[in-house]
Order: sequence, then structure tokens, then C-alpha cells
Amino acid sequence: MNETIGFIGLGSLGLPLAKNLLDAGYPLVVHNRTASKAEPLIAQGARLASRPDEAVTAGGIVVTILWDDASVESIVMSDSFLEKLGKGGIHISMSTISPDTSKKLAAVHAEHGSTLVEAPIFGVPEAAAARQLSIPMAGPQQAKDRVRPVLEAMGGLNIFDFGEKAGAANQVKLVGNFMITSAVYTIREALSMVEKSGGDPKPVMDMLTQTLFNAPIYKRYGQMAAENMDHLFTQSHIPLKDVGIFKQASQQAGAPAPLSNLLYDLLSSEHKQA
Amino acid sequence: MNETIGFIGLGSLGLPLAKNLLDAGYPLVVHNRTASKAEPLIAQGARLASRPDEAVTAGGIVVTILWDDASVESIVMSDSFLEKLGKGGIHISMSTISPDTSKKLAAVHAEHGSTLVEAPIFGVPEAAAARQLSIPMAGPQQAKDRVRPVLEAMGGLNIFDFGEKAGAANQVKLVGNFMITSAVYTIREALSMVEKSGGDPKPVMDMLTQTLFNAPIYKRYGQMAAENMDHLFTQSHIPLKDVGIFKQASQQAGAPAPLSNLLYDLLSSEHKQA
Repeated sequence: MNETIGFIGLGSLGLPLAKNLLDAGYPLVVHNRTASKAEPLIAQGARLASRPDEAVTAGGIVVTILWDDASVESIVMSDSFLEKLGKGGIHISMSTISPDTSKKLAAVHAEHGSTLVEAPIFGVPEAAAARQLSIPMAGPQQAKDRVRPVLEAMGGLNIFDFGEKAGAANQVKLVGNFMITSAVYTIREALSMVEKSGGDPKPVMDMLTQTLFNAPIYKRYGQMAAENMDHLFTQSHIPLKDVGIFKQASQQAGAPAPLSNLLYDLLSSEHKQA
Repeated sequence: MNETIGFIGLGSLGLPLAKNLLDAGYPLVVHNRTASKAEPLIAQGARLASRPDEAVTAGGIVVTILWDDASVESIVMSDSFLEKLGKGGIHISMSTISPDTSKKLAAVHAEHGSTLVEAPIFGVPEAAAARQLSIPMAGPQQAKDRVRPVLEAMGGLNIFDFGEKAGAANQVKLVGNFMITSAVYTIREALSMVEKSGGDPKPVMDMLTQTLFNAPIYKRYGQMAAENMDHLFTQSHIPLKDVGIFKQASQQAGAPAPLSNLLYDLLSSEHKQA
């Protein structure tokens, strides 16, 4: 029988992931700040935890998928989360957070005999429902071996192992989100030129996304933009904070970051935060 | 029997295109500023034209694939190019030039009873040799129907028709080259962050180009960058002038162009011109 999974965070991605686990036969204990979000899962047999640490089983697996570094830290560091998880326990951290925060979390887990596995998710909610998520993963090998079937049950189709170093999988997620943001703004600038010159953006994007740029990101956002440029921005969903963490990580490493600096400023001024 | 084609411009792309035409059984009259470049074609049966207008047959098809707007204009406007081409003649313009220059050329052709077909090429020289080129095409329908088999014989695998409006195909080419430049700089910035943080760029690019960014452009330049960041720039081949024309076209149309402005400045300062 599958082991019980603790699941904390039932946002737009967390909810379909948790549902996939239930569908795959994993007993769930779920927690969300707004408890009503858990209702469809409860109806399907999940148990509700009124506090985050109530979702934790000693030596078990607990998942967090939350908004930012601060929300993950506040849950891991407070209450009896780490004490309850204890020796042999695994925390699967799926939020997009900074590599530095991951390193810090990995260190406090080690002090309690538990393990952090980073597994941030690439994929929109529809991809979660379709079980077609790409997941970079990092952490101690034994823990990764234990969580891999759980990630697959969540909808992970392409799971890539980035070794044991804390921060490595979050780094990949930041790189991906920076690249998506850059692609979205590039598409917008390209199609604006066409549109304002009196051309039709749709056949232009059709050609490019059938040839040089025939990748999911360009197909998705290129088509969106060709239909409605404003819609592109309300639907692109890359949070300002992710580009902010990328830019900060570049700065810390001494890497030049002209594009992410510009994209951060453009996002700040144009994109309403979710 | 195939009609004789005039072919002007035997640079790194022109040469393999002309060779493909010869291989497909088209008699060729070729011209290049540096005549020695024509030697392999002459050896294969092409005839050498010592001046551009000697490559022109009355009512025939003549191809130009040259460096920039000025070089195309100087050939079309000077000597007896237009007079010799005359009624029923077609000029296939394959250089990356501005939509405005294309409109100007289309107009002077019309005055002489000849026709301009724009067919700028997406594809590196290896893609030309492999006959896997993507070609946006624009011009009067009858002329496009006549040149389509010639473009296919040159190596055109994906030929997209952008209607009859002069400038339309060149606009697509500019959009594509801007998007490629943006992708190349995005890849560099992404992998610099990873590398300078002590990570390994290769598995990061491997994951992204197998999932969200599994398009030819990202595979080609992502792999190049992961192997050698400097190599990426000597090999990326997007000329500064192309980003310059894109940026200028945006400005003329009143479209905001924050990324192409930045990329132009980065290219100006970092990229040696071919």
C-alpha cells in the first residue's frame, strides 16, 4: 500500500498535483491557509490538517508548494515541522525559491535527520492535469529514489536529476522561468512591430512556431499573442519575484544580467502581480 | 528542360543554394564580386557573368543574395539590370533587407514590367546543404507560382506564403532574426548565472532543450553555449544590421522596442561583425 503523503499548498498548481496523488492511490493529509480550497480533495478521501505540522508524519514524506521563499521558510522553521518529520523524513520542496534558501533548508533538515528534495515544477495547471510536467530534482540519492514514484504519480513526465547539491534544481527552475519571460517579451516585441506596421501577426507566428521556434513555450505564448496581445500578459503567469531571484543570483555570482534586469523592470511596470 | 537562372551573390549561403540549383539540373549564370568564389560552380557547368547584368536573361529569373540593402539596391538600380530583365522577368530577392527597401524595389520592377519576389532564407549553410531551409515568400501570385519550384530546388523545405504585399516576407525574416538574437543572449545570460554560481551549464540546457525549449534554435545555440560560451558568439552569425533594421522598423511603426534596443547595444559592443 502507498504511504501517506502530507501536502501543504493547494494553489493553482498544488491542487491538481494533490488530486493526481489521490487518483494514484496515495492517502493524503492536506493543508492550505484557506481551508475551503481542500474541499474537492476531502470529498475524494483526503484528510484535512488544520495546521501545517499536522500534515507531517514521522519519517514520512511531506510536500510543500507555496508562493515564495518566506512562506516555505515560515512553515519549515516554525511549529514542530522539523521535529515531527524527524529521522528518515523527506520534505519535497516544489516552490520556486532561491538556491540560497534551498541550501539553508537542506542544512536545517540535516540537523534533524530529515532530508530536503528540491523538485520545482515546470508546467501550467493544464499540464498538471494531463500529467505532462517537467521536474528538475536535486537532493541526496536515497531520498530521490524514494520520492521519484511520488513525483511520477503527481504528473511528472520528464524528471531530470541534477545531483545532490542543494539549490541545483531551483537554479534550473529560475533559469527556465527567466528564459520563458524573455521569450514572452520577445514575442510581444516581435508581433508589435508586425501589427503596428499594418501586418498580420498570426501567419508570422505560425511560420516561426512551425520551424525555428517549434517549442511548447513559443507555440503556447506565440499563439496567445497573435490572438490577443493583452491576453498574453494576463496569462503568462511568470511572477516578478522569479525574475527577481534570477537577477539576484546572477549578481551574487558576478554574472552580467542585462536582459533579466530589463525584464524585471518591464515586468514591474507592466505586469500586475498574481 | 529547366530555364536558366541568373544567380548573384556567392557568399556562405548563396554558394550552397546555387550548388543545389545546379544539382537539380538548372543551368546557371553566376556572378560574384570576388569571381574566384564561383570556381566550384563553373567546374560543375555554371557560366560566369563578369558583371551583374550579364547574369540577367530577358523575361527570366534572377536571384540576388547579398549582404545588405545598399548592395541589392546598387545592383538593381545600376547598369541595365532592370532593362535587361524586362517584361515577364522575375527577381528573387533573398537578402535580409528592410521592408521599405523591398517596397522601393517592387515599385521600380513594376515600372519595367518585371516582378520582385521576396524570399529571404532561414537557415545556416549546413541547412542549405541538407535542403532543409525555411523560406517566407511574398510577391504577385503568378510570379510566386513560377519561382516556387526554383526555391524548392535551392533547398527550401518549408516555404510559407505571406501574400502579395511588398515587404511582408522581409518583415518575417527580421522578426525571426530578432527572436534568434534574443534567444542567443538569453541562453548566454542563463548559463552564465549557472556557470558563475559553480554549476554545470550542460545538464541545465539538456533538460530545457528536451522540454520547454525543444526547438532547433535552442538546441543549436544551447548546446554551443554549454560547450563553449565564447564559441556561441563567433558562431551565432546574426548580423548587427539585422537587429538594427528590426529596431528601426519598430520605431517607424511606433512600436516599443526595449529588447531590440538593448540587444543592438550588446551586439554593437560585444560582437565582431562578419
